[in-house]
Amino acid sequence: MTATIPAGVETARDLVGPAIAAAVSRLSPDVRSVAAYHLGLADADGRPAGADGRPGGMGKALRPALALLSTRAARTAPERGVAAAAAVELVHNFSLVHDDIMDGDTERRHRPTAWTVFGVGAAILAGDALLVLAQDILLEGPAPQGLWASRCLSASVQRLIAGQGADLAFERRDDVTLEQCQEMAGDKTAALMACACSIGAIYVGAPAELAMGLAGFGAHAGLAFQLTDDLLGIWGAPEVTGKPVRSDLRTRKKSLPVVAALTSGTRPGDELGALLSGTEPLSEDDLLRAADLVEAAGGKAWTEAQADVQLASAGECLAETDMPDDVRAEFAGIAEFITARQS
Amino acid sequence: MTATIPAGVETARDLVGPAIAAAVSRLSPDVRSVAAYHLGLADADGRPAGADGRPGGMGKALRPALALLSTRAARTAPERGVAAAAAVELVHNFSLVHDDIMDGDTERRHRPTAWTVFGVGAAILAGDALLVLAQDILLEGPAPQGLWASRCLSASVQRLIAGQGADLAFERRDDVTLEQCQEMAGDKTAALMACACSIGAIYVGAPAELAMGLAGFGAHAGLAFQLTDDLLGIWGAPEVTGKPVRSDLRTRKKSLPVVAALTSGTRPGDELGALLSGTEPLSEDDLLRAADLVEAAGGKAWTEAQADVQLASAGECLAETDMPDDVRAEFAGIAEFITARQS
Repeated sequence: MTATIPAGVETARDLVGPAIAAAVSRLSPDVRSVAAYHLGLADADGRPAGADGRPGGMGKALRPALALLSTRAARTAPERGVAAAAAVELVHNFSLVHDDIMDGDTERRHRPTAWTVFGVGAAILAGDALLVLAQDILLEGPAPQGLWASRCLSASVQRLIAGQGADLAFERRDDVTLEQCQEMAGDKTAALMACACSIGAIYVGAPAELAMGLAGFGAHAGLAFQLTDDLLGIWGAPEVTGKPVRSDLRTRKKSLPVVAALTSGTRPGDELGALLSGTEPLSEDDLLRAADLVEAAGGKAWTEAQADVQLASAGECLAETDMPDDVRAEFAGIAEFITARQS
Repeated sequence: MTATIPAGVETARDLVGPAIAAAVSRLSPDVRSVAAYHLGLADADGRPAGADGRPGGMGKALRPALALLSTRAARTAPERGVAAAAAVELVHNFSLVHDDIMDGDTERRHRPTAWTVFGVGAAILAGDALLVLAQDILLEGPAPQGLWASRCLSASVQRLIAGQGADLAFERRDDVTLEQCQEMAGDKTAALMACACSIGAIYVGAPAELAMGLAGFGAHAGLAFQLTDDLLGIWGAPEVTGKPVRSDLRTRKKSLPVVAALTSGTRPGDELGALLSGTEPLSEDDLLRAADLVEAAGGKAWTEAQADVQLASAGECLAETDMPDDVRAEFAGIAEFITARQS
């Protein structure tokens, strides 16, 4: 298991970054400045970021890399998938801007979140604009493939919204089942990942079998990614996650390991439920104890096993789908990278 | 000048209401309940609204009525434009849900706004979902007209966002020119109205000249509507506007009559600037005085004259565009209805 950034991710940033910057430059000045800040293209005063002349930001650029790979899976030059890759990255960032407001998060990618800098209203608008830009880019592309890609993206956005809606609703519930929690993760994370892994192929008019095989890979890899992310939310090192230690326990998030523990029917699971049921801020001792209880209730082991299962299923989808061997290897490399636990 | 609701508006509600209810029913439960509440399809507890069995809400349903008229302008049955009409209404409501959060408005259509009932996060998501639904409906329609209609809608949403962004930015500025204010109104209100007046024709594949003539009518009528709305925001009766008396002055909104007064170079205009420059809540006496100053500075007369100019331009567009006479008469009737000042 490797934690080295796969080469395709760097390539994607170089190919797709300029397309995203060009798209954002079409926004009106007030909206553009917020969007550019969030994307890491500019600082809070509108000065271009990235002293090396390259656009900064774009986070991990995983989704664009997957989208370009899917274009190559269709035996087409990655350059032809740039619009599709940019659209997926814009949608991902639309959801980040809005989620940061909903979750009250004040920091992202080691910078203050957009709403803390520009206000909630301006951040809502910037998210809206990124969402519409994503569709614009696809609808301007060649027909009918642009239309197909747009529908693929649209369907994944509706699932993204459904997942975030469920996540918000879970905060007020103490009867969330593990199945509901998995469905939420499927909607919130895996749907857009499935779209990223197939939209490039769809955009160049690849056959449905290829698109479906790639989407299956993406759905499983996306779930493995979320399971891993939930493990890091409890046991990840702050320097790796960019968040405070045990941040998901601190916010009482109904993450997969937590819900697995709460629904385990074990004594540590019940203890965990009692500990998390209050509304007072949890002390550092409480947080340590909560992490131990999740582990003792089997929540950690279940999540690790599930991540392995999903990763294996992703691998099966890859094996069963016809594509060039080097592309298959790069997909597998990215799947391993995003599920590397670093713990 | 009449204030009777044109017959086409009732018809539109009957035709488009079910399509909107069907679209909303596709949303996930958590998101659906917020969207249905905002649209007046359900109360805050999820019970269906409208004791007569008809969906409630849909506000004035002006935009769907205009969209169906544009289908008829293309000499096609209005039933064929239902998807386009529903999409415009969904976008309009997306913007209302998000604007209510940004503007901190607590009441709409005589009910508490969605964010006050369900929270800011859930309301942001519901707005997002309505926006994506609108595109879904069009993209599912016949190709390539569904694609054309989708691009028309998308372009108007970007202008809507630009206009709302400018409106938010104006709150923090005291140097807004009348030209900038008119541009903002064009983006925020007229662009979607232009889309509503042409999208039905576009959706049934009408020639470009018809679509452009209708869009021109909609842009002028939309500006006339905004100018009238700004007059009502100062001099409208609360029972007509559903808002407190002089509400736009209360919130120090940079509406068109206010900016016309502020930039008039007159003594009352300067006095108005001094009065509105503070941050303390304005007393009822201050509000009365501010309204008088807007009028004395010529802001009211300018706005009324501009509304008449725009209405006349809208009429010219209608006269120059080939369509059945009864459709032209209905367009004119709606334009007069939405600019009736009731004062």
